[in-house]
Amino acid sequence: MAKESTTIDVGEPSTVTKSSSHVVVKEKKKGFVAAASGGGSKRGLAIFDFLLRVTAIAATLTASIVMFTAQETLPFFTQFLQFQANYDDLPTFQFFVIAVAIVASYLLLSLPISIVTIVRPRAVAPRLILLIFDTVVVTLNTAAAAAAAAIVYLAHNGNQNTNWLPICQQFGDFCQNVSTAVVAASIAIFFFIILIIISAIALKRP
Amino acid sequence: MAKESTTIDVGEPSTVTKSSSHVVVKEKKKGFVAAASGGGSKRGLAIFDFLLRVTAIAATLTASIVMFTAQETLPFFTQFLQFQANYDDLPTFQFFVIAVAIVASYLLLSLPISIVTIVRPRAVAPRLILLIFDTVVVTLNTAAAAAAAAIVYLAHNGNQNTNWLPICQQFGDFCQNVSTAVVAASIAIFFFIILIIISAIALKRP
Repeated sequence: MAKESTTIDVGEPSTVTKSSSHVVVKEKKKGFVAAASGGGSKRGLAIFDFLLRVTAIAATLTASIVMFTAQETLPFFTQFLQFQANYDDLPTFQFFVIAVAIVASYLLLSLPISIVTIVRPRAVAPRLILLIFDTVVVTLNTAAAAAAAAIVYLAHNGNQNTNWLPICQQFGDFCQNVSTAVVAASIAIFFFIILIIISAIALKRP
Repeated sequence: MAKESTTIDVGEPSTVTKSSSHVVVKEKKKGFVAAASGGGSKRGLAIFDFLLRVTAIAATLTASIVMFTAQETLPFFTQFLQFQANYDDLPTFQFFVIAVAIVASYLLLSLPISIVTIVRPRAVAPRLILLIFDTVVVTLNTAAAAAAAAIVYLAHNGNQNTNWLPICQQFGDFCQNVSTAVVAASIAIFFFIILIIISAIALKRP
């Protein structure tokens, strides 16, 4: 009786040990697979983030340069005056050139951090840094684009109530270039929104 | 010999069971403490988030209402014309009123989700929803504020190059109100930036 019971006891622990070790191995494997797939999807996001940044640099650089170089000289002039439109005739356009150039510089500087997130897809700090600075910079980008858009609208349509006459009838090419710059900067806003959402998804607990 | 070995075998499993159960209890306690402290700081963030939203509602409502009610009638008039300035004289100000009203409505609708994050501070989905919509809405808010600011600047200073004369010399009170609205909307931008950063910190793995 006693022998039987001990035999049973001997049997039990060995099976328990086996099964528990089996479970441990299984869970370890599962954990490894989960970590790898989580890291993989996060790395995919990080690569997409990097590519978006490069595209956004192209958009903001285009916006800033097109606005900076936008000028038009009318083919007629008086004895004292030559009619010329330039980006620095309007303070809002000056602000646009400076602000969008700052945004492009920030994007350039953020590329190394984006590369860090590709190399270490599960690191939290670089993601958080990118998200916070992206949020601040997108407001600068939006402010520049919206302010310039308001002035471009005025230049196209004028305003009867305030007696501000449209200038685009004379300076059509200038207005065309300035509008292009505003559109390019607006496209960059959408890139930034996607960048922020990518960072948020990469930050969240899997 | 056989009896001894079985006795030892009986002894081993009991100690193993004891120690393993001890470890499990310890880890459970540890996990519970970690969850409680993480949840506590996240709940604090969620409450701060809620209060910021209420303040941002106040700021955006103020901005929208002040702009909407901004008008000034000059004390002199001709036979055909009464000189009056109104927010809907300028399309940018109309856009401002509508956009900032949308922002205020969104903030109001986001309050229940913010309450969910207070009740369930470790829930990921409501945080992610708030962060994504906050990001989209902050660009709308910034666009409205920046466009109105550009026009207010023009109303104050005019522009010699385009022959747009300042109107604030005549409509001083109107310009004052419009400027107040722009400042209130700009304050809301800062609230939004803090809200997005809060959501990001709450989302990240502890």
